[in-house]
Amino acid sequence: MRAPIEAETLRRYRRAADYLAAAMIHLKDNVLLTEPLRREHLKPRPLGHWGTCPGLTLVYAGLNRLVAETGQRTLLITGPGHGAPAIHANLWLEGTHAEYDPALSVNGHGLAELVRRFSWPGGFPSHLSPEVPGVIHEGGELGYALATAFGAAFDDPGLLVACVIGDGEAETGPTAASWHSPKFTGPDDGRVLPILHLNGYKIASPTIYATMPDDELTAYFTGCGWTPLIVDVRGTGDPDTPLADALARAHRQDTGPPPMIVLRSTKGRGLPATSPDGTPLEGTFHAHQVPLPGAAEDPDQLAELERWLRSYRPEELFDADGVPAGDLLTVPPEPSLRLGRVPQANGGTLRRDLPLPDIGKFAVAVAGRGAVEESPTGVLGGWLAELVRQAPQTFRVVCPDELESNNLGALLDVTDRQFARDVPGYTEHLGKRGRVLEVLSEHLCQGWLQGYLLTGRHGLFPCYEAFVSIVDSMVNQYAKFLKMSGEVHWRAPVASLNYLLTSDGWRQEHNGYSHQGPGFINQMLTKKADTARIYFPPDANTLLETMHRCLSSTGLINVVAAGKQSGPVWLSPDEARAHCRAGAAVWPWAGDEGEPDVVLACAGTTPTVETLAAAQLLADAAPDLRVRVVNVVDLLSLCPPGRHPNGLSEKAFAECFGEDVPVVFAFHGYPSAVYEVLHGRPATQRFHVHGYREEGTTTTPFALLADNGMTRHDLAADAVGRARGWSSAGGDLARGFRHRRDELLRLSCRDGEDPAEITGWRWSR
Amino acid sequence: MRAPIEAETLRRYRRAADYLAAAMIHLKDNVLLTEPLRREHLKPRPLGHWGTCPGLTLVYAGLNRLVAETGQRTLLITGPGHGAPAIHANLWLEGTHAEYDPALSVNGHGLAELVRRFSWPGGFPSHLSPEVPGVIHEGGELGYALATAFGAAFDDPGLLVACVIGDGEAETGPTAASWHSPKFTGPDDGRVLPILHLNGYKIASPTIYATMPDDELTAYFTGCGWTPLIVDVRGTGDPDTPLADALARAHRQDTGPPPMIVLRSTKGRGLPATSPDGTPLEGTFHAHQVPLPGAAEDPDQLAELERWLRSYRPEELFDADGVPAGDLLTVPPEPSLRLGRVPQANGGTLRRDLPLPDIGKFAVAVAGRGAVEESPTGVLGGWLAELVRQAPQTFRVVCPDELESNNLGALLDVTDRQFARDVPGYTEHLGKRGRVLEVLSEHLCQGWLQGYLLTGRHGLFPCYEAFVSIVDSMVNQYAKFLKMSGEVHWRAPVASLNYLLTSDGWRQEHNGYSHQGPGFINQMLTKKADTARIYFPPDANTLLETMHRCLSSTGLINVVAAGKQSGPVWLSPDEARAHCRAGAAVWPWAGDEGEPDVVLACAGTTPTVETLAAAQLLADAAPDLRVRVVNVVDLLSLCPPGRHPNGLSEKAFAECFGEDVPVVFAFHGYPSAVYEVLHGRPATQRFHVHGYREEGTTTTPFALLADNGMTRHDLAADAVGRARGWSSAGGDLARGFRHRRDELLRLSCRDGEDPAEITGWRWSR
Repeated sequence: MRAPIEAETLRRYRRAADYLAAAMIHLKDNVLLTEPLRREHLKPRPLGHWGTCPGLTLVYAGLNRLVAETGQRTLLITGPGHGAPAIHANLWLEGTHAEYDPALSVNGHGLAELVRRFSWPGGFPSHLSPEVPGVIHEGGELGYALATAFGAAFDDPGLLVACVIGDGEAETGPTAASWHSPKFTGPDDGRVLPILHLNGYKIASPTIYATMPDDELTAYFTGCGWTPLIVDVRGTGDPDTPLADALARAHRQDTGPPPMIVLRSTKGRGLPATSPDGTPLEGTFHAHQVPLPGAAEDPDQLAELERWLRSYRPEELFDADGVPAGDLLTVPPEPSLRLGRVPQANGGTLRRDLPLPDIGKFAVAVAGRGAVEESPTGVLGGWLAELVRQAPQTFRVVCPDELESNNLGALLDVTDRQFARDVPGYTEHLGKRGRVLEVLSEHLCQGWLQGYLLTGRHGLFPCYEAFVSIVDSMVNQYAKFLKMSGEVHWRAPVASLNYLLTSDGWRQEHNGYSHQGPGFINQMLTKKADTARIYFPPDANTLLETMHRCLSSTGLINVVAAGKQSGPVWLSPDEARAHCRAGAAVWPWAGDEGEPDVVLACAGTTPTVETLAAAQLLADAAPDLRVRVVNVVDLLSLCPPGRHPNGLSEKAFAECFGEDVPVVFAFHGYPSAVYEVLHGRPATQRFHVHGYREEGTTTTPFALLADNGMTRHDLAADAVGRARGWSSAGGDLARGFRHRRDELLRLSCRDGEDPAEITGWRWSR
Repeated sequence: MRAPIEAETLRRYRRAADYLAAAMIHLKDNVLLTEPLRREHLKPRPLGHWGTCPGLTLVYAGLNRLVAETGQRTLLITGPGHGAPAIHANLWLEGTHAEYDPALSVNGHGLAELVRRFSWPGGFPSHLSPEVPGVIHEGGELGYALATAFGAAFDDPGLLVACVIGDGEAETGPTAASWHSPKFTGPDDGRVLPILHLNGYKIASPTIYATMPDDELTAYFTGCGWTPLIVDVRGTGDPDTPLADALARAHRQDTGPPPMIVLRSTKGRGLPATSPDGTPLEGTFHAHQVPLPGAAEDPDQLAELERWLRSYRPEELFDADGVPAGDLLTVPPEPSLRLGRVPQANGGTLRRDLPLPDIGKFAVAVAGRGAVEESPTGVLGGWLAELVRQAPQTFRVVCPDELESNNLGALLDVTDRQFARDVPGYTEHLGKRGRVLEVLSEHLCQGWLQGYLLTGRHGLFPCYEAFVSIVDSMVNQYAKFLKMSGEVHWRAPVASLNYLLTSDGWRQEHNGYSHQGPGFINQMLTKKADTARIYFPPDANTLLETMHRCLSSTGLINVVAAGKQSGPVWLSPDEARAHCRAGAAVWPWAGDEGEPDVVLACAGTTPTVETLAAAQLLADAAPDLRVRVVNVVDLLSLCPPGRHPNGLSEKAFAECFGEDVPVVFAFHGYPSAVYEVLHGRPATQRFHVHGYREEGTTTTPFALLADNGMTRHDLAADAVGRARGWSSAGGDLARGFRHRRDELLRLSCRDGEDPAEITGWRWSR
């Protein structure tokens, strides 16, 4: 706890940071203006966003003061990640940059390097990114800062997460939903202090929130459950004191609705009023990006740029060697409390393995192939409940109100859904503390989980498969964060982001066409090979094994698609382990040994059942046909090994699929996903993929399969039609299978439910 | 304007509708309970959601009264689309169902058919869908009702769009953002009346909004700029009168903040308090779906179901023939005003062709191949401005604050960004009326545009390519809506949904890795062939032609990716037209005639430049090498014709790509997209696709190309390395090209900008 920082010191500190930020955007040389500014000192491609920088430094300086005075452990999340120059300036002044990279030492060399390196090939990107210490949120795509902040705060009671939200970002849906997050925080969670930074404009227009008068803002945030503190520093007076007062008040407050700050500031504060051509600058959207972009060509702009930069009087702030004046260095708190140094921002260093229960106790005993039926997610729920029972305060399940609907209700026997408010009406499994966070917003689930994982914890996101695409773009950005983190030597890997996709389109119960959509798989296929994993465990035991692997892994995005309805268990726990290790394998017990006439391959719960039933049909109807059955649990094992580390070796691939034998592939998702991963394998034209083709709506499971050509009869018909050496005999058989399918379809549709002879099938080979 | 409907009549009307909704969920026979209820009368697979139905009918009845009394033209958008039974009941009672389908006539036959057909194979899905009259919004995936409602209201000044938003849906981000929509409506737009329906619970938990006390709700919606009217009908009193009063007040109000209604009702009102096993039903989340799902097996549940259904006393509401009592039929307004009949709900019938300007005046005169450089989007902006100048009140541009950034600023010379509020600060091109809607929420852009298109108008959505994935899931649902609409005989096709993806990753200016992402293309590839179109016009003239075709089309989702930076114009307007018609074609002037040793193919603005530059490099360095250059403007033309209607015939495909010649393909997006569309074409292993592979961040354009193996040197090296008959000579040449690339890369990175020798290239063949 230190004495308050002098107001003049804080002002000088901000002048230095603002100067550095402006220099970063424009200069590559003469960075302290020790000589007259010339064209060759300028970056030829000035890239950056100035408008939000002075406001960010105001906040950073204010937080420095708060932290120095109170010792509050604080993580800063910067929603306007394009205000990176301001963050860099502060990280350099506080010495954090120098700690992570000696080339950025707190002297003239480091300063020159910092300025040059910003928005420069091989240097720092123009936005915040994992290369920047203290950062767990890029703020490139807008909307997720506040949810990420709450994720970081869960289960870290001593932590304050300060979160700057730009007024552009505030217009996004995910941000608007995030304001309700305090309704989900519990007594053992840290606190989030949102600072809504209103500087009036986005790229070219006024923002919604900046055009709201104070009384509307107060009403809005009061309605969301906050105590809004409005700080307006647009005048010419001292901005530090009102902000400091609000921060101190926010920090003190420990009863009543939590505090949030609305900071009204002047966009691009410090710029000239107009550019030489008369374009208004300070306080308008023209201050948003590079304020004087033509300085390299236009002598008037160059002169204006020099006047602007010199208005910060760098010579008063840095000595001849570029070392900041001594008073400036008193502003940042002691090293361990500096915003850039907080260990939560490098969460991998805090990550500890989860105490995963042994799966043996939860696995299903297998009496015969498919003889026992269990709900895969139901069995998983029991295992997850045991994990939660061991009470790790580092594991959470986020879910859009679908935990029970997804048959994971066993979790709720051992923990509650966490909800902050008293609910007078009837509830079940709702409490002030709980490992489960349920909110009908996939965006919030994802944002919370990202913040939680990036600060060193673990989690699982079960989701209706069709609706997980709501977070497609968040996953894009998260995958980018992971990829870049892997290239930063000081970042330790964080726990993987784990999706459990269930309530899939094949068995949708109360829902119809809108609830069918396996496109997230295709989305994941666009990700880097060192990031994405996609699993289709075919039964309960394989799901247990798969999830054990996922929750043990780091640095990945794991997508696991599994059924929730009761279904056959095919593999013993040991077999499941071996199967997961292989990725894809022949199931010898399900087909013929030796060289096959046709391969029946499958990936996914429902396709596996249909494929094995097809093999049964074929064994009965065409005993001479040699059928091999292959199950794929790891979709990316189909990729050539050069394209994906999980890709089967050429030899293993050939052991599964032969080299020129026809393959009839029953796939959980769009057939295109299989074609895509197969590219580069030999003779891919022999693969004939059955999958979801956007047909069918509210109907029986059998009719839905038939609409998409995925019944066992379709697979069997395709197999005999394509099998080597079966071109003549196969035709009749195929017609027979299709005829039978149509008969059963009529029956299924007539009665409004699949008759027992359809669903009552048993493996009998 | 009619006399007010008697309160008792309205109550009886609602009893009838509630009865029908309950019957739809449970019964397939004995639908008027003319005999004791038996197991065989039940649907074997009862699917549906009861909880929200009584509330929806309360609203529907209240709107009927309002419309009957005022003659107000009204469109209803039902956010809780799973409350479909209630909507069906009302549509049947008002005779709309009978108009669209005589089998659903207003008598016992129609009633039995309606009840049976709900959630039945081949019948009505369990959710609202395009098969249902009056519907432009499914409400399967939640979050978009309110934005869609605003879209429907734009430019339709006499229309009232009543929009029910469930309290589950209210938790979503897109809904939370949508509350700000009135800030964007103008004096010539219709009105939206949101009705937030709080019945306490989602699937298994309390909802956020239902747990907010009245003062918070009032504060929240006042802050959003509404006049909230809270109607609490949870008590046992008459619910119709307080709702009618609020509706009348909302309808009268024409100054001050617009009215919205918060309707607190009892979930599943009318159910027994508990089920036979003691589970609480009415007023809890156990009322959400099928209230008595075990009635077919459990005699106690069956008896309870019968008691519940008989509590509506159907015999008092329907005569022996199943015709509703006469007083019930007085509730719906006159036919032309019925909620199910409003023409805006079948917008294709209102759609008129846009007065598209001739593109000739705007096309770029071509002096030589690539000799003139123009910004494709800049040229398009001029054409769009001319369209807007002709003042069609049926065309809007929605954009997330990126119109100028995407170089479409010419539009703003002829129209403003529409914004309802006075902004005291500096603005440009902002007005109370304007064809442009800019908000930093892709969700709002998409939702508004969907509502606008589905009510018969036209629009364009320009978007940063990387961020359009924010609406992936909305596009999924919209594509489903289009697909099902096409199967409904009375739905007329609506104008296509047109995306202009620009500010792509190859030329990202102020941004970095977070702003790179061509995944929307892969997302579109999962859509039905009769829905999705994906275009890569290589220059300004081809973009004009492409956009003309898109804005003339109906029923499609058109994705057009085009550059915003100045770039070479390759084709004359006539050539552009022919090229768009072909989809893909040899550019004979860019390569060699006759049988090639290698094909250089390209799709996308930047890949086309690099490919032609590669052809130039090859012509200079390897004059004996026979190179064919193919440009692909329609990505789906690569699909086999059996898979996509735009697929090139086998002959046309072979004319472009030969049959076994190696193809080096430079692609704008992920290479996987090309591999996917090519599946099924002969010998696809000869295609070697260069594209975006998630490498590079803020850097020079050349470095970004190099990071992703997409420079002209990479393409040329690959071409000579793979060309037929060039295996020995090709190796040296390839090394030379790669060496040159590395040299230029060093130069580019050293100077922070591509030197003139890289960018200054000109086509000289």
